[in-house]
Amino acid sequence: MNIPKTSTPRIVIIGGGFAGISLAKKLSKKDVQVVMLDRHNYHTFQPLLYQVSTGALEPDSIAYPIRKILSQYRNFYFRLADVEEVLPEQKKVKTDIGELSYDYLVIATGSKTNYYGNQSIKENGMAMKTIPQSLNLRSLILENFEQALLTDSIDEQDMLMNFVIVGAGPTGVELAGALAEIKKGILPKDYPDLDTRRVQINLIQASDRVLQEMSPVASKKAEQFLEKLGVHVWKNVLVTGYDGETVSTKSDLSFKTATLIWSAGVMGATVKGMNAEDLIVKGNRIRVNQYNQVDGYEDIFAVGDIAAMSTEKFPDGHPMMAQPAIQQGKHLGINLERLLSNKPMKPFNYFDKGSMATIGRNKAVVDLPNFKFQGVFAWFVWMFIHLFFLIGFRNRMVVFINWAYNYIRFDREARLIIRPYKKST
Amino acid sequence: MNIPKTSTPRIVIIGGGFAGISLAKKLSKKDVQVVMLDRHNYHTFQPLLYQVSTGALEPDSIAYPIRKILSQYRNFYFRLADVEEVLPEQKKVKTDIGELSYDYLVIATGSKTNYYGNQSIKENGMAMKTIPQSLNLRSLILENFEQALLTDSIDEQDMLMNFVIVGAGPTGVELAGALAEIKKGILPKDYPDLDTRRVQINLIQASDRVLQEMSPVASKKAEQFLEKLGVHVWKNVLVTGYDGETVSTKSDLSFKTATLIWSAGVMGATVKGMNAEDLIVKGNRIRVNQYNQVDGYEDIFAVGDIAAMSTEKFPDGHPMMAQPAIQQGKHLGINLERLLSNKPMKPFNYFDKGSMATIGRNKAVVDLPNFKFQGVFAWFVWMFIHLFFLIGFRNRMVVFINWAYNYIRFDREARLIIRPYKKST
Repeated sequence: MNIPKTSTPRIVIIGGGFAGISLAKKLSKKDVQVVMLDRHNYHTFQPLLYQVSTGALEPDSIAYPIRKILSQYRNFYFRLADVEEVLPEQKKVKTDIGELSYDYLVIATGSKTNYYGNQSIKENGMAMKTIPQSLNLRSLILENFEQALLTDSIDEQDMLMNFVIVGAGPTGVELAGALAEIKKGILPKDYPDLDTRRVQINLIQASDRVLQEMSPVASKKAEQFLEKLGVHVWKNVLVTGYDGETVSTKSDLSFKTATLIWSAGVMGATVKGMNAEDLIVKGNRIRVNQYNQVDGYEDIFAVGDIAAMSTEKFPDGHPMMAQPAIQQGKHLGINLERLLSNKPMKPFNYFDKGSMATIGRNKAVVDLPNFKFQGVFAWFVWMFIHLFFLIGFRNRMVVFINWAYNYIRFDREARLIIRPYKKST
Repeated sequence: MNIPKTSTPRIVIIGGGFAGISLAKKLSKKDVQVVMLDRHNYHTFQPLLYQVSTGALEPDSIAYPIRKILSQYRNFYFRLADVEEVLPEQKKVKTDIGELSYDYLVIATGSKTNYYGNQSIKENGMAMKTIPQSLNLRSLILENFEQALLTDSIDEQDMLMNFVIVGAGPTGVELAGALAEIKKGILPKDYPDLDTRRVQINLIQASDRVLQEMSPVASKKAEQFLEKLGVHVWKNVLVTGYDGETVSTKSDLSFKTATLIWSAGVMGATVKGMNAEDLIVKGNRIRVNQYNQVDGYEDIFAVGDIAAMSTEKFPDGHPMMAQPAIQQGKHLGINLERLLSNKPMKPFNYFDKGSMATIGRNKAVVDLPNFKFQGVFAWFVWMFIHLFFLIGFRNRMVVFINWAYNYIRFDREARLIIRPYKKST
């Protein structure tokens, strides 16, 4: 890989997500060599992917070149690589561009879509965990309407204009709300020769409330917001399969649709190597101790979604969200420095800053540790926080302009089918 | 295609480029039915494609949904379709989504890359006429540097870091200048472990000057600007082939490169049908009379790049650029209205507003009919004009923000490999 061997310890970070980037930043100006490996050359701001799918934002504004983040620091190396295996005995990682030795290894590979073994959904459904996936979904949504124009069959039109979203976590709820706003604000203008009142948005949740990780009051209010926007919310419904036409459930209920979007779960994106059987716990995550050290290894750490640190409050590990990842990345940076200066590491403590979700224009729900609120103010808070956490001044400006424009004009202009989805498959 | 047959005449426009869109706008509020067919659902602002390839702009900011342009007008229909054949005897067009009858047909299909029959260049070279092509080029440029990091072979590195651009028209010149700026401002920061001083940009022109459609003073100044930026300009060099590694020329000169960008010519993007043999003239364009009427047809017109209207000043047709297309589209709108009210049509007169090209930061050349200037002021004029002609307020704002940011920070942040190019082929 052509990375010079120096006398300073080499820390290899796999993954440039929230955890990996905040760790890398923390290690800047320290006397270590840092090598970051990622299969993309950019960091993705995942909480806004649904806005790419629904034409509100360009993909480039929610992504940021990893090299640009790291270029300010000395002794940092980035390689565009797919990690194939960790070889702990040799202290090496095997990748598609060669092998690399490490002194310390940090696994920050994040999560991927969890289909819970359901092959039919994996094959026929759409996921939304990466920018290419979000762009595919954007293309598909628009292609559906173009196709609906061409048929006289009411059944076929209804199928094309029915969007079934499985999983009412933040992603599912935000996507359902955005689709409802498109139905109301954009479709009647763009498709005057189509009866877009017949567009359906069905949001299906296996448990008894939406946003079940949030407070009951947030769930209740979010559901009201969704219903106000015309989203059909189905609770206690377990989806069992999708053959490309029909979504089947455990009960008699079924849905005819050309588009199933699967946002019902994520699982750790593990790497091969180490003693996987013993280490992988619920959610396909790697068990770590309170220092984010992988069980049984002194020199391998895991942070973010992939890491399952069992605590009293979170016996199965912290929520798979941006905040724990950022905090663990930062904290590990401090611990690695302590380790290198032979100081004892400090246990990680999660500071829950709260959580939030936006349903639509002026409609959001926010749970702070001691204060819960919903509505217009929550929506502004949501926007402010998301702008703040976006990396890059230019991205913030461009996203802000887009949001301001969309707000004033009730519009979203990035509705371009740049890479057709159907034709390419 | 489910387009209602009304009593008003139906005008079918093939192509949503500059010519098609300006015609459609002119026909708004007229008592006609307008159907626009395009294989993309967006209009592309082609003059800025090179900025997408070089990471200065997002693709979404130089494209605009066609439905959004037309949604303000009544009696307008858009269909996402590939036109396969024109059947003039039946007054119909055949497309991949069915047949459509017309009362008047307007061919505004624009142009495509002209390889002059050179198969090796077509297969191994990159073109830059569409947004997907520009994104492929952006990915390839970045992938080359990632790959260069992985090899110890100086020869292979040099090949990966050598960019050969064939054709020094506006596209070639602007792309060469942008690459030179990336070499200077971005590569040393992004690739500190690569000797990016060895990056080469070779711009090859078959004739004896760059920008040969412009004035000699513009050509001379543009060449000086290019050389100042470190671009190697090769004149009177005829490229004969490219096998993926070596660019061969008519002389002994050859170039080892992983990237050949072909901007040496365009040709009309004709459609099948009509009496092609008699109608197609130099540049693969369709011969039209002074009313943009296709030779031999009362009810078929052609506008923009595809139309060859022979005039005293332009015996082979107007330049294949935005201005003639926009003017012909508008003019045909007036003529169609006259035709429908049984008034005689008016001949088209091209008003040459001048031409311009930008080479880099503070470096542009402008030829106005009575005034030619170069440098900083020309560069501001170039930016202002391009912002003005972009469709959509949001696009203008976003492009302006990006340009302002890039200007102040000497940066271009859209350097993301969203769809890998090499891996997908």
